[in-house]
Amino acid sequence: MKIVILGADGYLGWPTVLYFSNKGYDVIAVDNYLKRQITEDIGVSSLTPTPFLENRAKAWKEASAKTIEVRIGDVCDYNFLSDLIRTEQPDAIIHYAEQPSAPYSMMGHKEAALTLQNNLMSTLNIAYAIHEFAPNCHIVKLGTMGEYGTPNIDIEEGWLEVEHNGRKDNFLFPRQASSLYHTTKIQDTDLLWFYVRTWQLKVTDLMQGPVYGTFTDETSLNPFLAPSFFYDEVFGTVVNRFVVQSVCEYPLTVYGSGTQTRGYLDIRNTLDCLGLAVEFPPSVGELRIFNQITETFSVKEIAEKVKQVGKLFDLDVKIKSIENPRTEKESHYYNPKYTGLINLGLKPRLMSDENLAKMFVTAMKYKDRINQNVIFKGIKWN
Amino acid sequence: MKIVILGADGYLGWPTVLYFSNKGYDVIAVDNYLKRQITEDIGVSSLTPTPFLENRAKAWKEASAKTIEVRIGDVCDYNFLSDLIRTEQPDAIIHYAEQPSAPYSMMGHKEAALTLQNNLMSTLNIAYAIHEFAPNCHIVKLGTMGEYGTPNIDIEEGWLEVEHNGRKDNFLFPRQASSLYHTTKIQDTDLLWFYVRTWQLKVTDLMQGPVYGTFTDETSLNPFLAPSFFYDEVFGTVVNRFVVQSVCEYPLTVYGSGTQTRGYLDIRNTLDCLGLAVEFPPSVGELRIFNQITETFSVKEIAEKVKQVGKLFDLDVKIKSIENPRTEKESHYYNPKYTGLINLGLKPRLMSDENLAKMFVTAMKYKDRINQNVIFKGIKWN
Repeated sequence: MKIVILGADGYLGWPTVLYFSNKGYDVIAVDNYLKRQITEDIGVSSLTPTPFLENRAKAWKEASAKTIEVRIGDVCDYNFLSDLIRTEQPDAIIHYAEQPSAPYSMMGHKEAALTLQNNLMSTLNIAYAIHEFAPNCHIVKLGTMGEYGTPNIDIEEGWLEVEHNGRKDNFLFPRQASSLYHTTKIQDTDLLWFYVRTWQLKVTDLMQGPVYGTFTDETSLNPFLAPSFFYDEVFGTVVNRFVVQSVCEYPLTVYGSGTQTRGYLDIRNTLDCLGLAVEFPPSVGELRIFNQITETFSVKEIAEKVKQVGKLFDLDVKIKSIENPRTEKESHYYNPKYTGLINLGLKPRLMSDENLAKMFVTAMKYKDRINQNVIFKGIKWN
Repeated sequence: MKIVILGADGYLGWPTVLYFSNKGYDVIAVDNYLKRQITEDIGVSSLTPTPFLENRAKAWKEASAKTIEVRIGDVCDYNFLSDLIRTEQPDAIIHYAEQPSAPYSMMGHKEAALTLQNNLMSTLNIAYAIHEFAPNCHIVKLGTMGEYGTPNIDIEEGWLEVEHNGRKDNFLFPRQASSLYHTTKIQDTDLLWFYVRTWQLKVTDLMQGPVYGTFTDETSLNPFLAPSFFYDEVFGTVVNRFVVQSVCEYPLTVYGSGTQTRGYLDIRNTLDCLGLAVEFPPSVGELRIFNQITETFSVKEIAEKVKQVGKLFDLDVKIKSIENPRTEKESHYYNPKYTGLINLGLKPRLMSDENLAKMFVTAMKYKDRINQNVIFKGIKWN
């Protein structure tokens, strides 16, 4: 099995490369280092050292004797992508090649335009290249639970049967997001759903919640293999940020009441989900959607959990509520369904004190590299 | 009242410019002539002569003594657009500045990328420029009934209350379109709906059906003021195409069974709808959606109507069914609601033999300019 991973340099991209390589897949790791440019531009960086892909691939070769092919190029460049697909004929392609930060997409016009352009053009190019040059290839795209927002009804996995004036039809589940980034993911889904119907593509869209974690089975083999670990307001996900804030004794920043509830998952479960999606592909002409989370928490609950684990390290973690910079409902109904991946065999790894403690160990190891100035930048969404 | 009309050189853009100018608005007509480039590239042209905007504005000045300001520039260039909005402070902005052809968007990767890029970046730029420089300005965007596709339930005007597992919420009406062009209009609506909620913009989204007609009250004053009149497979709308095909004795090309049903409207009603939308703006923070059609027909019914009118001109019009190049349902439920604009005061002008006859007169006047080779180009959508 040959698999192409786009956005292979990212927080999830790199561990995904190792996961599939370890399983014996031929892996082609693709990135244009856009996120490195963006993070450099806004002055933030990963807590863990993150060598360039070529050097990480060498470290993996030494650790595992397995080879990863690295290609540096832009998925928004159709010549580059279509040449790759035509010559490599992958069985599956995983699409992480998007600008992944909601706060970044809300900083200003330049950042909004980059997010819209990059996220939609990459998805269009993938649909086209697969249709033209490898029509049997399975496209796995990362969506986000944020596409659904916080509706006042149960969130199904992607689809909803609607009854209206005595007649019925099946539709994509209604989606309205609270950032431009999340809106581009809604638009991505619309784009792929259109081409699935038109060209009979095989697509899996994984509606993922915020991921946390600083290691996977494969990345633990060598410090050079570590995932990136952003802890700033723009690129850090909430659990990862809170762990670093605890270690450097910066109060945990809870937006507003902290009652905003979301579904979360361990980075190792992200890999399990990708593995299951690739192992069990959808049918021809099917857009298959899974909700990729394992449990739900409010932000306040997460802050409390991190604070408790901090005590094990003799850290007196403070929690501080700040004015909510986002336009979002703080108190809301939230009942997402997430049985599809469990039915395929996913074993949820819940958020345990032990796992959080391991994240603390990583953060403490690199404590000298923490830059407190990037933790809160005060980006207003409205 | 000052109004900016983007895409002012188009089939609807130019008559809209004249309509508002005639009503006494200060009109700024903006275009980058992208459609002229595209139509030249694929070798099609308007049956009516269409002078450049500056010359049309001169002809209008002679006919009406009214001045139209013309600005040539690209709405996708944020510096151009934001300078315009900042300095002019319009009360309303009408957004026609999109690649408007569904078949064009399905021709190949280059055309798809242009459509996606142009239609979304223009809409993003408008939302941003209005938010930053003229937050009270009313944005009127042209959507399309094609966003809804052909669902098996009644089509409401933009919104739907959904009940699910005993709970309720209100959502954008489910949308799934049958071309990339129509999909970009779905994505446009998502983009504007996001920024309406985030920035409290005032937006009207007009879900328009295929428009027909070759004249309006204002364009009839002088032949230089005529709307463009495309009759080719790519840029011609169906009624306009059928009239030209009749005049040059080319059989009317009905795709498949011809039972595809859509909502239609007279170009003069398009202007009435725009006028009402601008006169009665939505509230701050409201995305108001109207379905902009006046009656529904199947393609077969339209072909029959045109054939009957052809007899008045001694034309023996043939109707020919050809293999459907599109991926679409031919037999489907179709029950769209369209009372919102009528409640504001719209007087529907239905498709009469008299109106169709006037279109025949226009087509016959320019009969020597008809190029039969462009009527059917055989673009396959799948």
